[in-house]
Amino acid sequence: VGNEVKVGLLGAGTVGGALLELLKDRESEINQAAGCQIVVKKILVKDPQKKRLIGADSITFDSAEVVSDPEIDIVVELMGGLEPSKELVIKALSNKKPVITANKALIATYAEELFTMADNNGVDLYYEASVGGAIPLIRILRESLAGERINKIIGIVNGTTNYILSEMSSKDLSFEEALNIARQLGYAEADPSNDLDGLDAAAKAAIMASIAFNTNVSLKDVYVETMRNITAADISFADQHGFSIKLLAIVEKLDEPEELSIRVYPSMISKNHPLASVNGAFNAIFIHGSASGDLMLYGLGAGGNPTASAVIGDLIDATHNLISGHKKRSLKRSPLRIKDISELCSRYYLAMDVDDKPGVLADVASLFGKCGVSILSMEQIGIGPAARLVFITHLANEEAMKKTLKGLSQLKSVIKLGNLIRITDAEN
Amino acid sequence: VGNEVKVGLLGAGTVGGALLELLKDRESEINQAAGCQIVVKKILVKDPQKKRLIGADSITFDSAEVVSDPEIDIVVELMGGLEPSKELVIKALSNKKPVITANKALIATYAEELFTMADNNGVDLYYEASVGGAIPLIRILRESLAGERINKIIGIVNGTTNYILSEMSSKDLSFEEALNIARQLGYAEADPSNDLDGLDAAAKAAIMASIAFNTNVSLKDVYVETMRNITAADISFADQHGFSIKLLAIVEKLDEPEELSIRVYPSMISKNHPLASVNGAFNAIFIHGSASGDLMLYGLGAGGNPTASAVIGDLIDATHNLISGHKKRSLKRSPLRIKDISELCSRYYLAMDVDDKPGVLADVASLFGKCGVSILSMEQIGIGPAARLVFITHLANEEAMKKTLKGLSQLKSVIKLGNLIRITDAEN
Repeated sequence: VGNEVKVGLLGAGTVGGALLELLKDRESEINQAAGCQIVVKKILVKDPQKKRLIGADSITFDSAEVVSDPEIDIVVELMGGLEPSKELVIKALSNKKPVITANKALIATYAEELFTMADNNGVDLYYEASVGGAIPLIRILRESLAGERINKIIGIVNGTTNYILSEMSSKDLSFEEALNIARQLGYAEADPSNDLDGLDAAAKAAIMASIAFNTNVSLKDVYVETMRNITAADISFADQHGFSIKLLAIVEKLDEPEELSIRVYPSMISKNHPLASVNGAFNAIFIHGSASGDLMLYGLGAGGNPTASAVIGDLIDATHNLISGHKKRSLKRSPLRIKDISELCSRYYLAMDVDDKPGVLADVASLFGKCGVSILSMEQIGIGPAARLVFITHLANEEAMKKTLKGLSQLKSVIKLGNLIRITDAEN
Repeated sequence: VGNEVKVGLLGAGTVGGALLELLKDRESEINQAAGCQIVVKKILVKDPQKKRLIGADSITFDSAEVVSDPEIDIVVELMGGLEPSKELVIKALSNKKPVITANKALIATYAEELFTMADNNGVDLYYEASVGGAIPLIRILRESLAGERINKIIGIVNGTTNYILSEMSSKDLSFEEALNIARQLGYAEADPSNDLDGLDAAAKAAIMASIAFNTNVSLKDVYVETMRNITAADISFADQHGFSIKLLAIVEKLDEPEELSIRVYPSMISKNHPLASVNGAFNAIFIHGSASGDLMLYGLGAGGNPTASAVIGDLIDATHNLISGHKKRSLKRSPLRIKDISELCSRYYLAMDVDDKPGVLADVASLFGKCGVSILSMEQIGIGPAARLVFITHLANEEAMKKTLKGLSQLKSVIKLGNLIRITDAEN
């Protein structure tokens, strides 16, 4: 390797561009921390325009010059998407080049294949930037908490939806209004489905579960619900009752039998919980370990500079390992049974519009009872021909709640069923 | 080294006891993470009673059996205090044994000597548990943010004082009342001076500054003020004006000229700041990096299990390095000029009791003006022969504030000067 470590970069978009800037701007600090010169030798781009922007000598349109050239020591993948990223990362690993990626979809979808490939070739595969942007979550789970018995991780890992929910709450906006502001400010993409429907958070949940519990969880193991249906009325009720509504990614290890629950949905969480006050585009990950107790990490989950900052941390690590000939920590990953959402127990919030007639509440309440769901509180909002009933249940089972919903939808006096929102309690 | 790494433990008090429990309880996970068997071979204790508690075979009263026995691979120091800890740690390092310590006083006082010793002997000196208990701060500063340009760290790093201030705020208690509760619950020691007077936080500030800025700062470089004088009235005023009062450890790197400001004092901080809602015995460290942006780490700063959890993270690292023959990252530390507190600029809160007579406010206000301190707001609390005036200043210089205080103390109409409390703003 010598005194220079040669980096090949795949992609020079927002994050790649920020990375190149930072590497130039902080050359001396970064090289001191890495213990050698880090030099970006080749940059794969799609757009010939970049040639002009970055400087022609390192630009290439041929991926082999990055992933197969023996001169390249480390590959940094910042293209995003599944293909050709996967193919290129696999090629780089098989050429025994350590790989750093910020690509959550890639890691969440092909974890097993990629980590096996990295292990078999004895090289690092780092992905700090794939979850929580600048938040050093992956390193903490991999190293600081390596001997910790983690019970539960609850994350706000999608800045777009957190921004929307925070705006709805602080400014009494509708979902559509808040989404429009997020779009104007660049917090939401033209097609924000991946964010709003929880798929981005689900990929991150899969990555967190895999590293926290030494297993291989993929995107399809994650139960996901969209947050598009959350209304201003839901948020206002939550607020008045001491809750915030957040899109949560929850990863939980259960014992006897040993299984994993992984789910992403909009949820109410008590304002006393530190996650409840994580607002705007910030991310936060709350971890409960049996000896460490409650831990929370908070920071910017997206953006060129924060993401590039995490990539640089990985790059320094990989460089250091390369020049010191450090052997990789072996990551023995064992499969874990995934608990189905139907087995989940939770407290629930349920709103519905009903005819405002005598006897309606009795009908509704008796239906809850018949389905085995016990009611903690009921509130009637508004008067007139229709009234809105809002229920909070005691701890109930997901199946029982489903039966209740079905029964309610068949009651003539129920005009419209609103959202069913789970309440995330600290204890369960 | 072989398949077994032999640990020598110095001290088996609260943290040492918790460590032994955890190592037994999680043997398989920890060994899997470390890549070999971790076995505690010798435990140095003072109290012969422990022989009965822990099991006689590993107990010793002779420190040489831990720090000088060639059989011992790694030394874990959990005795606390400066001596004989320092002597024993030095001996262990000079015998080329990696050392893990949770001893903040030791690291803060002898950083330069200890790290030089570790470097010269090519062994690790880890101290994650010395700041923020279970919070993996040191690793993040050392590794994740190694290439980051950190501007500022603001920490709530003392659980005792944070518990007291939180109780005073949430339950309208006096300092003495809150201190008594903290004592009853075991959050405050019999002699809590080290906590209350900011010395514990100052040691942690010195450690944070040294690792964040690759320098050697010691306890004596830290400007410290006690929090004993904070009154219920200060807290209530702060609360009404959107502030919390927290004992903050602030570490800041300034450019042109390059210098470091390190200070510990009770400070007002906006309730919008994530540190403001860190309550009870929790700790949190807020870091601003120029690319990463705002980061915050939150968790339990003390207690047997949280502290032992951090020690285990270090122990797995040190073990892994030992068996893989990993070369240490070199920590080139350069001296940095320490900025004197007199050069600080801040906004200030100042309360005073004055005669309630016409002209008094004019006298007081003109004195502020003469000293070059501009007033942002003034409020009069209470009526009668004496009135309480509360001022918030614009950004002012510490020297100017000192002059103001001196002038005020000489005004006949000022009966009693209350606390001068700095306001910590996000931007400065």
